[in-house]
Amino acid sequence: MRDDAVDLDATMRDMGERARAAARSLAVAEPGAKSAALRAMADAVNADAATILDANRLDVEAAQASGASRAMIDRLTLDAGRVAAIADALREVASLPDPVGSVAAEWTRPNGLVIRRVRTPLGVVGVIYESRPNVTADAGALCLKAGNAVILRGGSDSSRSSAAIHAALVRGLEAAGLPRDAIQLVPTRDRAAVGAMLAGLGGSIDVIVPRGGRSLVERVQREARVPVFAHLEGLCHVYVDRSADLAMARRIVVNAKMRRTGICGAAETLLIDRSAPELVAPLLADLQAAGCELRASDEARALFPGALPATEEDFRTEYLDAVISVALVDGVDGAIRHIERYSSHHTEAVIAQDQQVADRFMRHVDSAILLHNASTQFADGGEFGFGGEIGIATGKMHARGPVGVEQLTTFNYRVSGNGQTRP
Amino acid sequence: MRDDAVDLDATMRDMGERARAAARSLAVAEPGAKSAALRAMADAVNADAATILDANRLDVEAAQASGASRAMIDRLTLDAGRVAAIADALREVASLPDPVGSVAAEWTRPNGLVIRRVRTPLGVVGVIYESRPNVTADAGALCLKAGNAVILRGGSDSSRSSAAIHAALVRGLEAAGLPRDAIQLVPTRDRAAVGAMLAGLGGSIDVIVPRGGRSLVERVQREARVPVFAHLEGLCHVYVDRSADLAMARRIVVNAKMRRTGICGAAETLLIDRSAPELVAPLLADLQAAGCELRASDEARALFPGALPATEEDFRTEYLDAVISVALVDGVDGAIRHIERYSSHHTEAVIAQDQQVADRFMRHVDSAILLHNASTQFADGGEFGFGGEIGIATGKMHARGPVGVEQLTTFNYRVSGNGQTRP
Repeated sequence: MRDDAVDLDATMRDMGERARAAARSLAVAEPGAKSAALRAMADAVNADAATILDANRLDVEAAQASGASRAMIDRLTLDAGRVAAIADALREVASLPDPVGSVAAEWTRPNGLVIRRVRTPLGVVGVIYESRPNVTADAGALCLKAGNAVILRGGSDSSRSSAAIHAALVRGLEAAGLPRDAIQLVPTRDRAAVGAMLAGLGGSIDVIVPRGGRSLVERVQREARVPVFAHLEGLCHVYVDRSADLAMARRIVVNAKMRRTGICGAAETLLIDRSAPELVAPLLADLQAAGCELRASDEARALFPGALPATEEDFRTEYLDAVISVALVDGVDGAIRHIERYSSHHTEAVIAQDQQVADRFMRHVDSAILLHNASTQFADGGEFGFGGEIGIATGKMHARGPVGVEQLTTFNYRVSGNGQTRP
Repeated sequence: MRDDAVDLDATMRDMGERARAAARSLAVAEPGAKSAALRAMADAVNADAATILDANRLDVEAAQASGASRAMIDRLTLDAGRVAAIADALREVASLPDPVGSVAAEWTRPNGLVIRRVRTPLGVVGVIYESRPNVTADAGALCLKAGNAVILRGGSDSSRSSAAIHAALVRGLEAAGLPRDAIQLVPTRDRAAVGAMLAGLGGSIDVIVPRGGRSLVERVQREARVPVFAHLEGLCHVYVDRSADLAMARRIVVNAKMRRTGICGAAETLLIDRSAPELVAPLLADLQAAGCELRASDEARALFPGALPATEEDFRTEYLDAVISVALVDGVDGAIRHIERYSSHHTEAVIAQDQQVADRFMRHVDSAILLHNASTQFADGGEFGFGGEIGIATGKMHARGPVGVEQLTTFNYRVSGNGQTRP
């Protein structure tokens, strides 16, 4: 083993042990101390805005010099408004109810035992992300609110920006008397640090949250030896039933696809009821007028010749761009079958006035988020009222859908008796 | 690869695919069909009692011939009463509320979207167990009630008994018109079948539940490539505070240790408040009178010379026998530190009249089940009112504590709108 690998391993294990110690302290921290820390972090981010922007400028220049894509540069770049938004988001998390110690369920047994299921922190969360520097603050804040310590490993492209933001977070922790190890940033750019985190740092990491593109998430899912909250992609469908209100369907379809094309809740496939061919032309014309490229089945193209032909691969593609695939299906059951076959089980919408159709769609489609007569772009922790999200989980274990503060907790059972013994 | 390995692999993958298909059907099965199936299973177990007992006799004779331990023979052996209890347990699961489709939370957003978190099945559960044949029925019933298909892999010692019980379960499924693949029993004794299940059968298994001894559970945790609900051991503590009611403490301590010594909720370590030395002799005398071997710290032995000396290893040992380790600690904080160091985070109890002491214990000890003034032997899904359990989870992800029907579900979000688009 190379010397620097030995050093990295020791550094990472030490971070894990310090995170574990901080987690023990955070688990019993007063709610007021956590929200005071979050507000102090927001103040520090505001106060450090110039420093953060200077650091970000160096990151952006380095990325430009290395020929990074325009989309990547956009994700990386901060300005005064984005820095202020980071501080605002910290204040919003501060104002959320504290989940730790809240009673999720309570019942009394015939023998008089009172059983409470009480929310408790998960422990130590590892967050692995790419170029968006705001994740440093968002993920740090949500983990802290849930009583967890967090080890952050940002992309090397945003390392200076993340370090500047992290310094402000640590000042907030210290101002509130919380351990500075509650939010740690992996200082190295060595990619082996990711491998160490995926191995769990010798038992110190309880769950890994990857935030980034497909190759990152696939690596995490393949290599992680600890639980992962991840989604690979959002291949989201909108099904328009014959019973749909056409005006409503037109508004929702354009919004679901075109409001922002690069987010995981953007629609990628439009399914239209075969028994209502009159829906096809207006829906597709609206999308085209909004600047969307159409890739449709032959049957749909016969009704709207302006569309390009779709291949099988189109129905398996998360475009994250102004492109949509279109197919006709045999009513709601046809939509259910198409979604079962092609969906990534992230988010799907049904547009229908017939409540029985909507109920059938909701009951038979097994995706994290299902919407009736609303846009798929609502697939977002903030829109759910979670006060932010650390990601959207498409797995079924523990967290599913938007992962907010509550999903970053676990629970235990606390049983109150007055001398009961078991017969 | 040997031909039989190829055959096993194909057999197991085929089971996985059939389970996946059955799970799709079960996910939308009517609650009445599932409870009718469970009642029909109970009738079939009663009707087949003679066949089941004959099969069990062959298993027991084979185990005796191979020199199995008395404890193993006891776990394996059925009699008329145990067969009737299997049928009764099936009827009890039939009578539980159906979790699938139940609304765990509901709220309305300012834009009028109504968001419901609705319980849905996990999918396909793999259960790997050892010699207790009743697990075949218990695990099959709980998984079915939660809308999951299950693949059961019992120990080879109980293979004839499990096959006879499984045949009765399948008759119940068919009587209610549910797919027979909803509950499958791995027909082979080949240990490689366990490896195939731990690899997830090519994506067909969503979660593995091991039920058995330490070596089985350790293998599952080490090798599984899918999530696991498992507990390694129940190294449970009882802490008796200086504020305890002595009469209550004596009853609880003897019950927690001696009611049944072989279950995971049995107490293994007794911690006594150092500032109340007068508690030591009566508590230890009661345990000794009940037939319990005492292994105590020097300090405790000075107060009760009849105890044997405890080593460090004793405080790390789950005896599952009539043996207990005893130490004195510095009040509730000393108890918290001892438990943090030695506990398996399964179940701990505090005996105290001082509510602040109890609250501090509950807040600082991070175990799945915490009891105040009650016996650790209540750590059981039936005692919690879950109508049975498939196991007790000591991990923090998804399920924790007794894993009953509700813990065998996941959820999705179902959002009802009236045309909302995202601004």
